[in-house]
Amino acid sequence: MADTELYDVAILGGGPAGLAAALYAGRDRYSTLVLEKNGLPGGQIMLTESVENYPGYEHVSGADLIGHMADQARTFGADLRTGQEVTALRREDDGTFTVTTNDGEAAFRARALILAPGSEYRRLGVPGEEAMRQMGKVSYCATCDGAFYRDKHVLTVGGGNTAVEDTIYLATRFTARTTMIHRRTEFRAQAVLVEELYKHAAEHAIDVRLPYVVEEIVATGDGTAIDHVVIRNAATEQRESLAVDGVFVFVGMNPNTAFLKGFVEINELGYIKCDPVFLRTSVPGVFVAGDCRTRAMMQLATATADGVTAAMLVKEYFRDPHWWETHRRVPEQEALGW
Amino acid sequence: MADTELYDVAILGGGPAGLAAALYAGRDRYSTLVLEKNGLPGGQIMLTESVENYPGYEHVSGADLIGHMADQARTFGADLRTGQEVTALRREDDGTFTVTTNDGEAAFRARALILAPGSEYRRLGVPGEEAMRQMGKVSYCATCDGAFYRDKHVLTVGGGNTAVEDTIYLATRFTARTTMIHRRTEFRAQAVLVEELYKHAAEHAIDVRLPYVVEEIVATGDGTAIDHVVIRNAATEQRESLAVDGVFVFVGMNPNTAFLKGFVEINELGYIKCDPVFLRTSVPGVFVAGDCRTRAMMQLATATADGVTAAMLVKEYFRDPHWWETHRRVPEQEALGW
Repeated sequence: MADTELYDVAILGGGPAGLAAALYAGRDRYSTLVLEKNGLPGGQIMLTESVENYPGYEHVSGADLIGHMADQARTFGADLRTGQEVTALRREDDGTFTVTTNDGEAAFRARALILAPGSEYRRLGVPGEEAMRQMGKVSYCATCDGAFYRDKHVLTVGGGNTAVEDTIYLATRFTARTTMIHRRTEFRAQAVLVEELYKHAAEHAIDVRLPYVVEEIVATGDGTAIDHVVIRNAATEQRESLAVDGVFVFVGMNPNTAFLKGFVEINELGYIKCDPVFLRTSVPGVFVAGDCRTRAMMQLATATADGVTAAMLVKEYFRDPHWWETHRRVPEQEALGW
Repeated sequence: MADTELYDVAILGGGPAGLAAALYAGRDRYSTLVLEKNGLPGGQIMLTESVENYPGYEHVSGADLIGHMADQARTFGADLRTGQEVTALRREDDGTFTVTTNDGEAAFRARALILAPGSEYRRLGVPGEEAMRQMGKVSYCATCDGAFYRDKHVLTVGGGNTAVEDTIYLATRFTARTTMIHRRTEFRAQAVLVEELYKHAAEHAIDVRLPYVVEEIVATGDGTAIDHVVIRNAATEQRESLAVDGVFVFVGMNPNTAFLKGFVEINELGYIKCDPVFLRTSVPGVFVAGDCRTRAMMQLATATADGVTAAMLVKEYFRDPHWWETHRRVPEQEALGW
């Protein structure tokens, strides 16, 4: 390991938070490494066809926005490496970090870490879901898989912004018929989106049913397709079978923090514990940014701001070794649910 | 006042923070008012010719970026009014707010406020500064006034990013000669910028002198121009006269919060006190966003994220009247200097 280059900053995750951190660290002339586990940077936002709520872009695809962010980070010298899944993390006695990845013998060293692994799709956890996912009949990404359902009937599940947006997207572009269910009697999604959903309902055959949950996804005899889905009215408990060709699950995300267990403190939902002002984790020299942390607002704009903030605070940490302790954690943060 | 429209959200300030808040409030279908005191929205960033550190834009002018943000906010219904300087603010007994402006009898009512007035240029506070400012010989904005100094000699003052960036801008585009002084022996600016400054120094006749301060700006006999500037070496205390045509002052910003005194708590530097997680001020229903608040990171990305966060939390406040109290302030925030 002695001949391994020592980076100033290693950023784990190449989504908006990680790329914004790389931009700022690079502008500070820090040698900056970004490790992205997928073949392309970007994370979840890569799967979003149309972004309209990133301030400054009235309309942009997730892929285009990430392309700009990645180019921008590279312009300032960030070393962006894809296909690098972290397999081990160690804090050395001298306070530096060693990061090992699945890429053969690749190991990296850095003086500070910024954790920005993001989050990924949450599953329903019902019988048949995983089997039908493997057959490509249960999806978590409308942009990726919508085109497979041209003139078909799909069931969409969820109540947040993504659920409503992507149901509209599927119904107006691909499907012949769309049934949308949500376990509560009201959507969590922004009012503007819910209005849009109902506006499209008649013309695009969207049947919104509340409050319903999926109980089981039942395969055909040969196991290659969905025969029907059993849904249950959450108020009356009445069950019903629905013949659909596919199921789209839009029920939120799980933080990609399994690989960090035992390295930094993580809460019961899998989010990295931090103080939300200075973005410090439980380990000195390890910052956190983006959707993987406690109290994250889960927006593009807030994730990029996290990256910017974390990179600026890394500078404070390098300048003053006592910074970590003098800017101590807020004792009440646990009580407040941070 | 009974026939005055009651907005859901009134945002005071049409810079990046205010416009991002308007975008999100508008997307939530809240009736949203933005009051901007200047003739155009945008605030300080309008004066920046080239922005390279807003994630997603490799290169954009401040004016173009603001144009996109303003159009985007309007698309979702925000009512953006310029030339509206707030002259009075009152919290009514029913918890709503009345905002009076200098625009004749204009008064506005809102259920919640987001304060986003930003900051403005700080003065040196030396003899001759104000007189020469009025003659257009002392400037705080390179983009605005650089062209007046083609083939002239200017003095630039300051040590942060803006000071270095704008000195390079002036020297490479306009001036024949540029003297740059800073009161400390090292710049606060990012290393990448300082390197760039020294790279340009020889070719563009930039003379960097540290540590120097301005002591006085002395006018010509008729008072229409600068005769010379007295600068002082902060280490040796030696004084020196410098014949320059103009002075550019880049020494930071002051929050535009004078009009808020007595309405919300403001710290000794003029920043609006808040808890930095929920962006609440001392008055229930009044949120804060951007460069005017305590603990602001003073970046475009962090200001827009503030706007997004404040708008999302307004929704929480509207949904649950007890939200303000249950998410109480962190008692230690004062001790931590927030």
